[in-house]
Amino acid sequence: MAEKSFKQRLHDIIFYSDSPAEKAFDIAIIILILISVSVVMLGSVDIINADFGHVFVIVEWVITVLFTLEYFTRIYTEEKKLKYIFSFYGIIDLLSILPTYLSIIISGANMLVVIRLLRLLRIFRVLKLVRYINASETLAEAISNSRTKILVFLEAVLIIVTIMGSLMYLIEGPEAGFTSIPRSIYWAIVTVTTVGYGDIAPQTPVGQLFAGMLMIVGFAIIAIPTSIIGSEIIKTKDTTDKLCPHCGSSNHHKHAEYCYNCGGKL
Amino acid sequence: MAEKSFKQRLHDIIFYSDSPAEKAFDIAIIILILISVSVVMLGSVDIINADFGHVFVIVEWVITVLFTLEYFTRIYTEEKKLKYIFSFYGIIDLLSILPTYLSIIISGANMLVVIRLLRLLRIFRVLKLVRYINASETLAEAISNSRTKILVFLEAVLIIVTIMGSLMYLIEGPEAGFTSIPRSIYWAIVTVTTVGYGDIAPQTPVGQLFAGMLMIVGFAIIAIPTSIIGSEIIKTKDTTDKLCPHCGSSNHHKHAEYCYNCGGKL
Amino acid sequence: MAEKSFKQRLHDIIFYSDSPAEKAFDIAIIILILISVSVVMLGSVDIINADFGHVFVIVEWVITVLFTLEYFTRIYTEEKKLKYIFSFYGIIDLLSILPTYLSIIISGANMLVVIRLLRLLRIFRVLKLVRYINASETLAEAISNSRTKILVFLEAVLIIVTIMGSLMYLIEGPEAGFTSIPRSIYWAIVTVTTVGYGDIAPQTPVGQLFAGMLMIVGFAIIAIPTSIIGSEIIKTKDTTDKLCPHCGSSNHHKHAEYCYNCGGKL
Amino acid sequence: MAEKSFKQRLHDIIFYSDSPAEKAFDIAIIILILISVSVVMLGSVDIINADFGHVFVIVEWVITVLFTLEYFTRIYTEEKKLKYIFSFYGIIDLLSILPTYLSIIISGANMLVVIRLLRLLRIFRVLKLVRYINASETLAEAISNSRTKILVFLEAVLIIVTIMGSLMYLIEGPEAGFTSIPRSIYWAIVTVTTVGYGDIAPQTPVGQLFAGMLMIVGFAIIAIPTSIIGSEIIKTKDTTDKLCPHCGSSNHHKHAEYCYNCGGKL
Repeated sequence: MAEKSFKQRLHDIIFYSDSPAEKAFDIAIIILILISVSVVMLGSVDIINADFGHVFVIVEWVITVLFTLEYFTRIYTEEKKLKYIFSFYGIIDLLSILPTYLSIIISGANMLVVIRLLRLLRIFRVLKLVRYINASETLAEAISNSRTKILVFLEAVLIIVTIMGSLMYLIEGPEAGFTSIPRSIYWAIVTVTTVGYGDIAPQTPVGQLFAGMLMIVGFAIIAIPTSIIGSEIIKTKDTTDKLCPHCGSSNHHKHAEYCYNCGGKL
Repeated sequence: MAEKSFKQRLHDIIFYSDSPAEKAFDIAIIILILISVSVVMLGSVDIINADFGHVFVIVEWVITVLFTLEYFTRIYTEEKKLKYIFSFYGIIDLLSILPTYLSIIISGANMLVVIRLLRLLRIFRVLKLVRYINASETLAEAISNSRTKILVFLEAVLIIVTIMGSLMYLIEGPEAGFTSIPRSIYWAIVTVTTVGYGDIAPQTPVGQLFAGMLMIVGFAIIAIPTSIIGSEIIKTKDTTDKLCPHCGSSNHHKHAEYCYNCGGKL
Repeated sequence: MAEKSFKQRLHDIIFYSDSPAEKAFDIAIIILILISVSVVMLGSVDIINADFGHVFVIVEWVITVLFTLEYFTRIYTEEKKLKYIFSFYGIIDLLSILPTYLSIIISGANMLVVIRLLRLLRIFRVLKLVRYINASETLAEAISNSRTKILVFLEAVLIIVTIMGSLMYLIEGPEAGFTSIPRSIYWAIVTVTTVGYGDIAPQTPVGQLFAGMLMIVGFAIIAIPTSIIGSEIIKTKDTTDKLCPHCGSSNHHKHAEYCYNCGGKL
Repeated sequence: MAEKSFKQRLHDIIFYSDSPAEKAFDIAIIILILISVSVVMLGSVDIINADFGHVFVIVEWVITVLFTLEYFTRIYTEEKKLKYIFSFYGIIDLLSILPTYLSIIISGANMLVVIRLLRLLRIFRVLKLVRYINASETLAEAISNSRTKILVFLEAVLIIVTIMGSLMYLIEGPEAGFTSIPRSIYWAIVTVTTVGYGDIAPQTPVGQLFAGMLMIVGFAIIAIPTSIIGSEIIKTKDTTDKLCPHCGSSNHHKHAEYCYNCGGKL
């Protein structure tokens, strides 16, 4: 019984964030994540790594051990162990510790690429932060509601960049950097999203005319995803999630007292 | 009668997508389009084409034959044959097969440019995908409703870039890349749409001052098409302008049959 | 009386566009403007001007004579002659013909810069098109209503770019292109508006950190003018321009039957 | 008593802007700020400073003395002196005069960097302008209301750029400019905000594929802050959520006293 209560208390501390102990645990984990990600980032800068490389290794192991403890405590306290292990957060938690352990096993001289990869995989610890973002429900709902429309929009963008990229490949040719259709499509994406690196840019007047048209189209296109999500966010203002208890219809006005469908009292 | 029923079934399989057979046909065509477009794209990459060129030729012919079958079956099963042939989709379907056949006829050594063009025309097969995009009606309606406003907006943008381009041609001159008015207008489009390649950029302080002003104007202008389409999408939202005949309340759901406020029949 | 009626008819043809004759006149003028602007643009391209320069001179004079006729007919038929002459359109109409005539008077060998300037001024003929844009009233009204807010927004942007530009001048120094504060402010404008030419770009890690922050701020800032104009366009949906006949209050709901201020019947 | 009244009058002139004298004072200060900022800016341009450096020094001292007078008069006339001194405006006012005085004290030959820094700090005088911006309340309120959502959005952007930057560091390597993870994250920010300098750009096909995906994601992401602030601005629009107690109609104007539908008192 005492064990159960201890397990339950551990579970609450780890999975919730209401009491001071629960909040302190969350903040500790967030700080560990930020330190860990910073270490991976700074470790990739040669001049910093040369001086502090040995410190980074120690910090790395301390954090890995702490994250390992966290991982197994989560498994221990969770009722539905398998569900957690194979959930998004469970996989992220495992990926946060695995690379460090794997780096001991695989330490042959001819495995440098794999070690480099493992070291980098630790950056995915940043995804552990997702758990602590209080994702605004309205926002998530708006994005989810406009999923279909955004998909249609993305399909349209992909068709446009495929055709414009191919046309520019034909018009400009390899001199201006349009060496293949995939590369020309890459240019079209860079242009239509208004990023515009300038590493590939049309040189001929005809190419510049087409590019100019593509830009103005992209300019008008940029309006569409904005409008879609925007209108969804605004829509979620006037209606409630309440269902009519009589007929089950949804999307009632937030001040509604009677169902618009069956006339019953809500 | 049996023939009619067979023709009718073929027609349904090709033109609709409700039954499993109809859906399977659609998915098959979509996969063929994607393979075909990928082949054209990869074929333009020299190092890939060197190794797999002969495979691409075979895949190309198989797909062309299948698309030819599809094209003639569509003509055969469609009642209004001419209407289909000269419709957007009919022309796209024809353009998807024609270049491959033409490439046999025109195979002289001095026709390389034409062959290159024909090979590229096959990329337009991507337009066959348009048929399978379930274009959101709300979106299409919103774009259509804001047509006039977007036209006004485009006219304004074109006048602005013409004047700014000409001014920069005068201020900067050929040293900075502003070699002619059309090229300077191209620069103005690149700038006002915030693409900013950097291949042509003002060098003189006066030119940079004007460019800075154009950018901030462009910054404000970008708001306009967004707002236009956005407001149209919101207008077509789920409420109607009808008022309740009993209590006069507004903002009823578009499918509402009873007032949400007093419960009276609308 | 007949003269008056002829003058009146001329006036209608020139200033309105309802009857076929009136529409034909408008279309003729629009075509002349487009030809004229194209000639100025093509004349600035050296290789085209070398071949067609003499044709351009003739076209130029024909169009100038036609625009001169149009200008004097407008003055002749307009009742309030001075008001027209000093109106936006009157000045544009004069500027459309003046440079060509001035170019004969000023033709000394040492006046090449002035002639070049005069030639370019003809591009302002494009502004004659403004008359024929059926500017959407809702749009114009929305922009006018949000004037104050956009001004506040521009002031905020100017303060941000001044401070960020000065900071980057201090951090980066002349090696990376930040040779003076005005030039650094130019860089800040290029960055915050997401144009990003890349001719001036931070090289030091600290500079890149600040630039990254400026970009994300700019990213959030871009939302503001969009939202301001958008909300104005949407606002103009639910309210009417009607004033209450009893108390003169405005902004009534479009379905309003009673004044919200004094309760009187609208 | 007379002294009090004089102090009170001074206070009104400095802190308000209703009477002509109060407005004149504000305009004088704004002009002084603009002159001062222009002098700092022009002084950083070598060729201008060479000719006008001695004029700039005089203007600088005149303005500093005037701002010093303003600062002490503000302290003198303000009741809550300490509150003003440690307020945002108080600190800005002090920072506007301090650097000039400090530059006399620290004038050793080996203090050039400090002097350069002090000279630049004067640019912060531009922040004195904030006092005179009539910040639109609706706008400020909308930004404040959407604070949490924008924070969530920024967290999401930071996680995306961290992961994409690290991936690109792995894929591209130092040849294309991705020399470290922080630098690769800088590239990701430059890309996702659509700035696109082009100083660091993917060179390998795989890198370009990932970059293209990041751009399209960024394209969709740009919609989110726009929509958030936009929907907040629209929410604060001219109508209230109050319903008419007599007929139940909604969307009343925020200053409404009578129902627009039935004419009853709200």
